[in-house]
Amino acid sequence: MNSPRNDGDPVKEIAGVMRLKEGEEAVRRVLTQIFRAGKIGTKDLAKAARLPIPVTAAIRRELEKAGLVARRGGAILTEKGSEYVTQTLGVTLGSQETETEIDQDLEVLENLRKYSLKRPPASPELDQAHATPETALKRVQYMQRRGDLDGRRLLFLGDDDLTSVAAGFLGTPREIGVIDVDERLLELIGEASKTEGLGIECVHHDLRDPLPESMLGRFDVFFTDPPYTVNGVKLFLSRGLQALRPRKVSNIYVAYADKPPLEMLELHRAITDMGMYISELTPGFNTYEGAEIFANTTSQMRLTVTARSKPTITGTYSSHIYTGEAQPRMRVYRCKCGADVLVGPKQRFSSINELKTIGCPHCGARAGFTLKKRVNL
Amino acid sequence: MNSPRNDGDPVKEIAGVMRLKEGEEAVRRVLTQIFRAGKIGTKDLAKAARLPIPVTAAIRRELEKAGLVARRGGAILTEKGSEYVTQTLGVTLGSQETETEIDQDLEVLENLRKYSLKRPPASPELDQAHATPETALKRVQYMQRRGDLDGRRLLFLGDDDLTSVAAGFLGTPREIGVIDVDERLLELIGEASKTEGLGIECVHHDLRDPLPESMLGRFDVFFTDPPYTVNGVKLFLSRGLQALRPRKVSNIYVAYADKPPLEMLELHRAITDMGMYISELTPGFNTYEGAEIFANTTSQMRLTVTARSKPTITGTYSSHIYTGEAQPRMRVYRCKCGADVLVGPKQRFSSINELKTIGCPHCGARAGFTLKKRVNL
Repeated sequence: MNSPRNDGDPVKEIAGVMRLKEGEEAVRRVLTQIFRAGKIGTKDLAKAARLPIPVTAAIRRELEKAGLVARRGGAILTEKGSEYVTQTLGVTLGSQETETEIDQDLEVLENLRKYSLKRPPASPELDQAHATPETALKRVQYMQRRGDLDGRRLLFLGDDDLTSVAAGFLGTPREIGVIDVDERLLELIGEASKTEGLGIECVHHDLRDPLPESMLGRFDVFFTDPPYTVNGVKLFLSRGLQALRPRKVSNIYVAYADKPPLEMLELHRAITDMGMYISELTPGFNTYEGAEIFANTTSQMRLTVTARSKPTITGTYSSHIYTGEAQPRMRVYRCKCGADVLVGPKQRFSSINELKTIGCPHCGARAGFTLKKRVNL
Repeated sequence: MNSPRNDGDPVKEIAGVMRLKEGEEAVRRVLTQIFRAGKIGTKDLAKAARLPIPVTAAIRRELEKAGLVARRGGAILTEKGSEYVTQTLGVTLGSQETETEIDQDLEVLENLRKYSLKRPPASPELDQAHATPETALKRVQYMQRRGDLDGRRLLFLGDDDLTSVAAGFLGTPREIGVIDVDERLLELIGEASKTEGLGIECVHHDLRDPLPESMLGRFDVFFTDPPYTVNGVKLFLSRGLQALRPRKVSNIYVAYADKPPLEMLELHRAITDMGMYISELTPGFNTYEGAEIFANTTSQMRLTVTARSKPTITGTYSSHIYTGEAQPRMRVYRCKCGADVLVGPKQRFSSINELKTIGCPHCGARAGFTLKKRVNL
């Protein structure tokens, strides 16, 4: 021990001493970026950690005092610093895409594809749409680069995309939880977790009900691809906020489809009303299998949760949250045999995928359907 | 003329007939994307235009009826369609980065560098910080790809980055206006415009005063890298909104630095309060020369202005808008001759750049200054 300060957690202590507005996240970001770079100058470090240069320099000085960082023509981690970053923070990502890493990605992708094929057909009445395995992997890599995967307690609110499984395959989160209302899906994720040793905790729960006690205040980060309605987002984000550990800042990750302008405005107002803001938004980030209503892609948002964030929904929620509820819609498909088949909520076939899986009730065909009409109910 | 509908503007008419929530922008987007792709299927078209597939297909059908689009194993533009897109919409960007385009970029960059060197030293009391010429070019290319440069009436609210000059060099906007409070800058932009034939209209105006009559309701798009305070953003966006033509949706482009979480939250709330929302946000997009306080980079936001957008500031504004006003700060620099020099608002040197330009008042040196202390006033 070089300094008495090291008896506690140095990241927490430095954040406290420096009264940093970003809290311990800022110190973690600086440490992680030094780890990734190997050696890095203060200017580049500030840029990578997204902090002002004077703040970055001051954090670096405190980390030096704590014996975690040294200067050798740039900031480097000491042995103790490396140990802290890899053991205590649980960070693993290096600076370079090495060949080993690329090989590992390909292996993960192959495994993901295997489990993706086993997914039950998407339930459009739950606003499910299966993201591609490539998207699931891309998401966890995106979170990893932003410091929100390695060593983190990670929650997925709904996961028909198997993003939790992708996170499990990377093997770097401290903890992975999944809450879903769809038992078929939890069974598959549970099976993958057991077979592959991913340690994913699956909880069957309808988010219209308040979060189970065991999930409250427990996670560092959450990911959700929520129902595509403003109410759905409000509800999922409200529940998610209650699952987070109280901190000055945390990131959460939300996928959302392009909707007409006034609906988007309402959504964004709901986000700022909850005391969160958008730190990054990438259109067309997520790709889905056959989700024609939103042109097969959604945007990926990274939201920052602040000390002022709070859920706008706390009790049991009884309004509509799914697109199908808010605007029930039926489709008429014509089979190549000539028969018209109704597809939609409360029909024998809730989706075209289901119709294709089960087959035309008249001739049994599993392909060759043409959309003839949409009916708003 | 294939159809009586073509007597007016087909884009406006189709938007009206279809009662599109995105208005004529949606039709413009579909046409532009067909133009860029050459030939494109409906799914890819929907993805590129960021519209649902059924809406895209319906717009395409209307464009076919209007004789602008035909189908040849995918949507293509008719001769009339091409003429409309290039002449009436003023769109020029092709689908591929051709060698000619790359050569053109290099030439633009060289020209921009030339004028950038002539910029007066940045005035930190106006929150000026010079973006690099590469950033200025990147910005206009970014706007071009998003359909907001070619054929558009473009306004810059403050432009110490010479982004207007970059837009002028590309030569595709219908109109370019610049409003700035800094006459030194307008002189340079005016000189560039005259020498290079860029047709930029320069207006000397302090945005704390309401917009000049001649600027109201005139532009399609605006770009601003506003003062880095919440008040500054509110003011610049409020003024900008009044400069826009009334439409169902428009995009505006805003650069902004990372600030502490609660200040960011306030900023984002100000944005949704004005009836706008973030459609894209890319951290670290903009790079500046020597702007250490925000680690040399800012995020680039694309905001969507809706039919509900309205300025929150309309009259003359008298609160603080610049960082230096909100939090006056002085710095003590030590020259290598040993003399301490005060730098800050109302001092002989308002910035370190100015000190370096003029030289140490004791020994005349123009380099070798070390920051000793920051003082909050």
